[in-house]
Amino acid sequence: HILQRLEDHFGDQPNQTVSQDLKGRRILITAGPTFEDLDPVRFLGNRSTGKMGIALAEAAAARGAGVELILGPTHLSTTAANITTTPVRSAREMHAAALQRWPECTDAILCAAVADYRPETVATDKIKKKDGELTLSLVRNPDIAAELGNNKLADQRVVGFALETENGVENARKKLLRKNLDFIVLNSPRTAGAAFGHDTNQIQLIDRNKVTAFELKTKREVADDILDRLAADKPTP
Amino acid sequence: HILQRLEDHFGDQPNQTVSQDLKGRRILITAGPTFEDLDPVRFLGNRSTGKMGIALAEAAAARGAGVELILGPTHLSTTAANITTTPVRSAREMHAAALQRWPECTDAILCAAVADYRPETVATDKIKKKDGELTLSLVRNPDIAAELGNNKLADQRVVGFALETENGVENARKKLLRKNLDFIVLNSPRTAGAAFGHDTNQIQLIDRNKVTAFELKTKREVADDILDRLAADKPTP
Repeated sequence: HILQRLEDHFGDQPNQTVSQDLKGRRILITAGPTFEDLDPVRFLGNRSTGKMGIALAEAAAARGAGVELILGPTHLSTTAANITTTPVRSAREMHAAALQRWPECTDAILCAAVADYRPETVATDKIKKKDGELTLSLVRNPDIAAELGNNKLADQRVVGFALETENGVENARKKLLRKNLDFIVLNSPRTAGAAFGHDTNQIQLIDRNKVTAFELKTKREVADDILDRLAADKPTP
Repeated sequence: HILQRLEDHFGDQPNQTVSQDLKGRRILITAGPTFEDLDPVRFLGNRSTGKMGIALAEAAAARGAGVELILGPTHLSTTAANITTTPVRSAREMHAAALQRWPECTDAILCAAVADYRPETVATDKIKKKDGELTLSLVRNPDIAAELGNNKLADQRVVGFALETENGVENARKKLLRKNLDFIVLNSPRTAGAAFGHDTNQIQLIDRNKVTAFELKTKREVADDILDRLAADKPTP
């Protein structure tokens, strides 16, 4: 009965007061980093932990959506109901998984920090060190947001994320237009308490017409702000 | 009292039957990976999780040693008594922390998977992606094992780790000689259930004269096998 009491205390309690405004929507969410292997041991990674994406998945499921969560390598996970998690490692694996699920989804929120580049070749054996410098050739990875955005149907919505350290709004809006996104979430690792690894985040929602700035909040609250915008933007039947 | 019962069940219980054969020894242990930043977001990493090094730290402390644990970026940690943890991120940070503590230590077990290379320059702002290829220039990191091994006093012992995907024993012994180690622990990511991320490991202990092969065991049991060798090799007073 200790387990039961812990379960009662920490478990996910269905909150009957949460609006089911995303009922009927099927939302593809990418989350976490991607790791691009150089050899069996080394990889190119990034600081994303998946916290923001997992918060989005849990908030969307609580609001009635079915969620397809494509999750990069992280020690975090979720066991909330109505979330199907597909674990992936590399950008190409994430790309393949996202494209496979996209036709059955109404919305995509591309929260993962996908590596822009991967090593040109992956060594089968561990690369031995030598004296002096080493040059690594990197090639571009597929752009999941651009592919989904530029191939979406009239009743599909695509939301992107932008992590910028300079000229945030300008760069984010360029990205929005180039990738044909419905709106984009801008955050900066320079803001105290925001972005990678933190439990809080501070965002701006940017679309073709306007910029909406939010306060620093928990990632779950930020998730609900993003989903409020998505819920208001109903697919045309 | 739930917390108390959990503590009783899961807590570290001082086991009075554990031999205190490392009493009086002060052991420097490096553990985990190192991450080498390219910019505020991206880094070069490796698959080490720190499990083996943390198991070594806990086993050594249980056998009476004082432990200086220099721990690379990982979500794992230890709260066991008599372990001082110094968290570091890059190879150069680990190098500086190890060199600072080494003069007060009797032994070093260099279990961390230290990056051999780091990016030549670290960008202050996130590197923007461009079309086509990108070339990354990498430079060698300091070799902590070689520095400690080649500068140890007569009463100091240095133990290295080798992770090899091919010609394991041959490469490990070359490393042992070049870095003037007392012995070296060889493991392979190719062995099922061994090395990175697993709870088990299978090792060979290699010194100038012999190779001793062990069965697949839990990392804590492997830690005790390594410490048995270290305990037998008493510092000359």
